[in-house]
Amino acid sequence: RFEAYGWHVLRVPDVNDLVALDAAIRAAQAETDRPSLIICRTHIGYGSPNKVDSAKAHGEALGAAEIEGARAALGWTAPPFVIPEPILEAWRAAGRRSVAAREAWERRLAASPQREAFKARLSNDLPDEVFERLSAFKTKMSTEAPKLATRKSSEMALGEINAATDKTVGGSADLTHSNFTITPGMGSVGPDDASGRYIHYGVREHAMAAVMNGLALHGGFVPYGGTFLTFADYARGAIRLSALMGLRVVYVMTHDSIGLGEDGPTHQPVEHLWALRAIPGLDVVRPADANEVTVAWRTILDRTDHPAALSLSRQNLPVFDRAVLGSADGTARGGYVLADADGAQPDVILIGTGSEVQLALAASKLLAADGIKARVVSMPCVEWFSEQDASYRDQVLPPHIQARVSVEAGIALGWHQFVGTAGRCVSLEHFGASADYKKLYAEFGITADSVAEAARDCLANVRPGEIHR
Amino acid sequence: RFEAYGWHVLRVPDVNDLVALDAAIRAAQAETDRPSLIICRTHIGYGSPNKVDSAKAHGEALGAAEIEGARAALGWTAPPFVIPEPILEAWRAAGRRSVAAREAWERRLAASPQREAFKARLSNDLPDEVFERLSAFKTKMSTEAPKLATRKSSEMALGEINAATDKTVGGSADLTHSNFTITPGMGSVGPDDASGRYIHYGVREHAMAAVMNGLALHGGFVPYGGTFLTFADYARGAIRLSALMGLRVVYVMTHDSIGLGEDGPTHQPVEHLWALRAIPGLDVVRPADANEVTVAWRTILDRTDHPAALSLSRQNLPVFDRAVLGSADGTARGGYVLADADGAQPDVILIGTGSEVQLALAASKLLAADGIKARVVSMPCVEWFSEQDASYRDQVLPPHIQARVSVEAGIALGWHQFVGTAGRCVSLEHFGASADYKKLYAEFGITADSVAEAARDCLANVRPGEIHR
Repeated sequence: RFEAYGWHVLRVPDVNDLVALDAAIRAAQAETDRPSLIICRTHIGYGSPNKVDSAKAHGEALGAAEIEGARAALGWTAPPFVIPEPILEAWRAAGRRSVAAREAWERRLAASPQREAFKARLSNDLPDEVFERLSAFKTKMSTEAPKLATRKSSEMALGEINAATDKTVGGSADLTHSNFTITPGMGSVGPDDASGRYIHYGVREHAMAAVMNGLALHGGFVPYGGTFLTFADYARGAIRLSALMGLRVVYVMTHDSIGLGEDGPTHQPVEHLWALRAIPGLDVVRPADANEVTVAWRTILDRTDHPAALSLSRQNLPVFDRAVLGSADGTARGGYVLADADGAQPDVILIGTGSEVQLALAASKLLAADGIKARVVSMPCVEWFSEQDASYRDQVLPPHIQARVSVEAGIALGWHQFVGTAGRCVSLEHFGASADYKKLYAEFGITADSVAEAARDCLANVRPGEIHR
Repeated sequence: RFEAYGWHVLRVPDVNDLVALDAAIRAAQAETDRPSLIICRTHIGYGSPNKVDSAKAHGEALGAAEIEGARAALGWTAPPFVIPEPILEAWRAAGRRSVAAREAWERRLAASPQREAFKARLSNDLPDEVFERLSAFKTKMSTEAPKLATRKSSEMALGEINAATDKTVGGSADLTHSNFTITPGMGSVGPDDASGRYIHYGVREHAMAAVMNGLALHGGFVPYGGTFLTFADYARGAIRLSALMGLRVVYVMTHDSIGLGEDGPTHQPVEHLWALRAIPGLDVVRPADANEVTVAWRTILDRTDHPAALSLSRQNLPVFDRAVLGSADGTARGGYVLADADGAQPDVILIGTGSEVQLALAASKLLAADGIKARVVSMPCVEWFSEQDASYRDQVLPPHIQARVSVEAGIALGWHQFVGTAGRCVSLEHFGASADYKKLYAEFGITADSVAEAARDCLANVRPGEIHR
């Protein structure tokens, strides 16, 4: 199998044949074009008289009697935890072996005119220009106000980022022209030329995530890679490791709901947003429009010790008019007030994310026609919002306002915590279906009408004076 | 790569060479020992003058002009959606080709004395003895009352099941002696002998889940397979398909919390229970003791159109004394009252699952010493509980009792819905660590004291008369 992958494969039939093992290591060192795999035939629990070649030597402690037997079989006479002097000295010699080479390298670096450039190249800092361009880009988006899929505005943000730094390494799991992850002039990394900085990973979401973890661990790279949100399932093992290791790896997850339309339930994420939010330390960011996208990218790149999963729409979304609505800078705080009715104390809070924020906004207008004052909160990142201090959170979601409605085209799961016992969730608690996205939203009741109705239902049941803690 | 896997691999360099394609299919049909893979070189969007060999032919509609070009290139003159008669007739002939063979087979079946046995073999029904044995086993466990890991009581339940039916096909992803998924006399499925009914899947969680889906789709088999709960991540794509297709596939997920101890955070599930509960249609079942385990298996096997993930402990758990506590039969309803203080109206409800139910019970005794009446609810399966009618749910979790505490050694996420705005969750909101499990529970505050303290905190803040809706 590894030969089929183009690896250099060596076999050592008996790992205790140290001459053969040494020869294999030397052959691997001499191989410069391919990665090497040395396959050794070993015996688990080697020396243990009764547990050798058995899972017991893996899953259990050997125990005193078996340890005695192993010591006798191996001819080991030193007391427990004592390393005989010749062995200790051999290891210490190995530790000293490359001292001169390391010191020579350090002298060469210290004397090099490229010293600072080298260090900058390996650091995880990004040039200020990245953040400046994203800020400028935001202003431009506001004045032009086109209707854009957030996957498309992400591509535009990436254009700014990739023009300002060459530390980003992009890629996609065979969905480049759906994820919109490539920008002009990146160049591809190929078998014969690794000078580019875009990797065509193939239909290999897990390998993509694992490779990105490696790039981030190396330092000096900011890896990002795309796939459909639903295929996050295939990469989940490695996404969890991004979070466990605190790496700045960016997952560009497009086609983030039933809004992808006709591809149907296998391709439509329903549970994935909350399943990803469940991973400790992973920032799940679902921007509502082009300006939230640019602030999201800025914030993600600024957080050097957190991976992020960007959840982006396939379908076009309106770019909100920030002259009358709250600033998209609120994205960096995870949740913010997008709109308030007349600046007055709201009767009800509508919380939306991504493509459903427009539904919350539309619902607020329906409610206003009935004299109900609704606040619209855009909540692109639950994790960032939860990091804010209590006073900010209480300002956005005042504890005394118990009438709350969440709207997201996926399962409600964690939204219950935000809307509370008296609240309602407009959600999708089952798999999707194959149809035009507008039909699906209408059929499954993810609509402004549903949000307004849920709000009225809340208000009819909330008793005055109840406090949300 | 497929050759390395032992497949029969054929190549057709030009898929339009129908003679070569036919020869390859015949060669594959003639190969009886191995699966065959025919690799064809094809052109996506073949015939389309401008989109051939491009992702555009996959991700976009061709459009009228391109369709015209493709029709011209292919020499296709029939009107759109009209199938020319000779082609239609060729397909209909293919449909008729095997009529005689099918009818002969049906006559042979109708005349066979083994007809009923054959149908029973292929049906998804299990013999009554499976369920009878599980009920009898339950009684036995109650009187003997040992302290057992739930993975161990699951092995005992499997012993009863596998003795009563040969429809079960067991297996594990290289963790048989940790998952306790094999029972005496099953026999292994190997390359040269497929007569056994236990599959050693290797470290291949995704393949295991996919194979189990195939077995369930075939019919007449009840596949179950084991791995550590944390490795559910690797199988998630196929687990989702079990749910989407409504298949009775049983995932035996052991080592279900930080309670696994020293293997550390990579092996300790924290977010996995809620990440699995997030999948629509998947029953996640986390029994608290041996009797809940047997009722869980009984219920899982009785639900022919639902996959289940059993979440089982590595560490030993007490077997509750059902003479004084609620019957484990409540497991089948997903959640039930395990204990009430003095049969009186409770002040607070403590909801636990799996290994943490014992903590809720211990906390109820701490609270009783302070004169606080606590109800303990065991909630092994949120999905089954949610299927119950409102009157049962309200009986277990009376709406007027707002003081509620959940306890589970994982993230709280979905528990907020059950404990409500006034409730508290005793949970673990970060990755685990490597240590003895008792130390980890104490260090991370998953203790009876924490539960009791959370209950007191709730009661101090709940205002009388508030209603949980």
